[in-house]
Amino acid sequence: QKNIVNKVMGIAKDAKNLGEEDPRRIFHSIKVGLAITLVSLFYYFDFFYEGLGVSAMWAVMTVVVIFEFSVGATLGKGVNRGIATLLGGASGVAAHRLASFGGENQECIILGLFVFFIATMVTFIRFFPKLKARYDYGLMIFILTFSLISVSGYREDEVIKMANRRLSTILIGGLVTICICVFICPIWAGEDLHKLIASSIEKLGIFLEGFGHEYFEMPNDNKDHKEKKTSLDAYKSVLNSKGIEDSLVNFAKWEPRHGKFRYRHPWDQYLEIGSLTRECACRIDALNGFLNSDMQTTKEIRTKIQEPCTKMSSECSYALNELAIGIKTMTSCTLSADPHIRNAKTAAKKLKSSLQTGLWPETDLLDLIPAATVASLLIEIVSCTMKIADSV
Amino acid sequence: QKNIVNKVMGIAKDAKNLGEEDPRRIFHSIKVGLAITLVSLFYYFDFFYEGLGVSAMWAVMTVVVIFEFSVGATLGKGVNRGIATLLGGASGVAAHRLASFGGENQECIILGLFVFFIATMVTFIRFFPKLKARYDYGLMIFILTFSLISVSGYREDEVIKMANRRLSTILIGGLVTICICVFICPIWAGEDLHKLIASSIEKLGIFLEGFGHEYFEMPNDNKDHKEKKTSLDAYKSVLNSKGIEDSLVNFAKWEPRHGKFRYRHPWDQYLEIGSLTRECACRIDALNGFLNSDMQTTKEIRTKIQEPCTKMSSECSYALNELAIGIKTMTSCTLSADPHIRNAKTAAKKLKSSLQTGLWPETDLLDLIPAATVASLLIEIVSCTMKIADSV
Repeated sequence: QKNIVNKVMGIAKDAKNLGEEDPRRIFHSIKVGLAITLVSLFYYFDFFYEGLGVSAMWAVMTVVVIFEFSVGATLGKGVNRGIATLLGGASGVAAHRLASFGGENQECIILGLFVFFIATMVTFIRFFPKLKARYDYGLMIFILTFSLISVSGYREDEVIKMANRRLSTILIGGLVTICICVFICPIWAGEDLHKLIASSIEKLGIFLEGFGHEYFEMPNDNKDHKEKKTSLDAYKSVLNSKGIEDSLVNFAKWEPRHGKFRYRHPWDQYLEIGSLTRECACRIDALNGFLNSDMQTTKEIRTKIQEPCTKMSSECSYALNELAIGIKTMTSCTLSADPHIRNAKTAAKKLKSSLQTGLWPETDLLDLIPAATVASLLIEIVSCTMKIADSV
Repeated sequence: QKNIVNKVMGIAKDAKNLGEEDPRRIFHSIKVGLAITLVSLFYYFDFFYEGLGVSAMWAVMTVVVIFEFSVGATLGKGVNRGIATLLGGASGVAAHRLASFGGENQECIILGLFVFFIATMVTFIRFFPKLKARYDYGLMIFILTFSLISVSGYREDEVIKMANRRLSTILIGGLVTICICVFICPIWAGEDLHKLIASSIEKLGIFLEGFGHEYFEMPNDNKDHKEKKTSLDAYKSVLNSKGIEDSLVNFAKWEPRHGKFRYRHPWDQYLEIGSLTRECACRIDALNGFLNSDMQTTKEIRTKIQEPCTKMSSECSYALNELAIGIKTMTSCTLSADPHIRNAKTAAKKLKSSLQTGLWPETDLLDLIPAATVASLLIEIVSCTMKIADSV
């Protein structure tokens, strides 16, 4: 019994965490509840007045199916569903009429062939990558409506009436959903994407800020050390952010003008920045490998390259932070980030020349120089990110 | 007009490519066509005999909605849909009965509150990451069935009849789908995952095989060079494979025993191998940066480290290839991969000691040593992959 209480408490705690992490989740749940209740009551009352009949349940269905977390996803699904129902219904009626020319016996065979042919074709079309990304749901609904309408064995005027009802109930459901989704605490995928990109750049900055300290101070104070370590590991989530970014861009493209974002906001540029950020994170991951590596160098050797290396990583981190702020506030960040990048470059040159003068014994270079090289690679990437950030 | 012809030709070509790339896509399309046609004709004939009435369309709907590319995804959606409909229907009937105690006027309010409460709760539950991964679709169908059944304004025996019909039609649609999906040219997600993991390891091997040659031979023969370059770039797809792997594992868990795979195949281990492979790909990406870097070293310096470096990368590539073959054929690959890894380790030691003796002028070490270090990192990763591959 105690076990069960513990489990319930655990679940409640998880739920609280989920809500605290992103309170919009709670708002979203309430919005969905509201929309479904509204449309369900509409269905309930409609039943008594027999306006739309059983078709009214399509309205409930539409709400449940298309209400997504962000405005973009909801609009995308709604538009897909609306247009696909219209087209599918129209072709279904057409197929029904064509088949009815064939007389009683052949009608069934002709309809079967139609359905088979269209379903196979459209399923194959769903594999085209471009269509899959944006119209997958619409193509599915097209198959559904087409086969439902074309094989329904009613007389022709009944079929048109049925197609008509299906379309109008879906419109009602879709409109209610979209209104509630857009006008009550809207959750914009574009804004999420914007924040995600800025925060990934920031995470890289945080790592670089801590890196110099972490690498050159010998780790003696263990507890404090552990804590820092976890804050440094934040960059790891950047490595696998591709999927989320892709879907957010996809949703953001459905969204109308809102807030600071123009109608044709350059969403694809975010993808570019995102992939550069990931590349940078990949280099940082390699750098991180040296932090945990077995091959430790003596302190003397480290101190020799400490100054330029620390300088490089901290200046890179300042530059990245400026870029992140620039993206967040949507101002040009060239002016504020430029000097840091220039500083980082000078530090890199200094490091190179100090290596060339050969002031040290040639032992154990192995784990010192990679750090420096990766840092200089970083500079390349930072300047690359710069170019793109300029154009926002 | 010519333009249109060109476009159509282009689309036809794309379609041909899609089909050639993976012929299972064509089979899948035909299977979907077949399933929909079968169920549609069932709906068509049922209409004349008035067996299930309008409810029969749920069968068509189920087929369209749950038929996915792989067996795992289809089974997952089917089981989710079936169980969710059952539970949703039962709670819907219960809610309907509870509300009917309240008398005519209050019934509507009580039902509205029920629907609002359940919809909000379940929508929030969908945010739990574990449930989202496996039961997202089922939770959605639960909300749908619950609100449809509970607000339908029929008398109680009618409601039970309706819930009953909905369940049986969904069962018919689901069974047809699953039979066609499993018994006609099944497409197993588990097999795909298996191949994907093996091919990513292979891709890394291909890169390493070409790397030694690429880095130490100066690029003079340009055309031949370009071709090789693209074959080396294959590893880049490994970097972003996380999303695909996750979903394949998810689907694979739904699949019953088939072929070489036992019922409780250790799918999670694939994820582990996958993430190690990605880490390795990340190092390779850093290594690749040096291939294209502006900082080019003179040939003399390169030749000095050529031998151990080439050895290391080629031995690593042999080991990775052995691992990939081992995974493909599901045999223990320790014996065949081990000597290569040992060779690679010896080469790494040799390189380290040659660095320590300090035979060269201390200029431009910068872009030589990183390559060596990354290679030695690779060895660590290879031996790590080894451990996991053993347990398959």
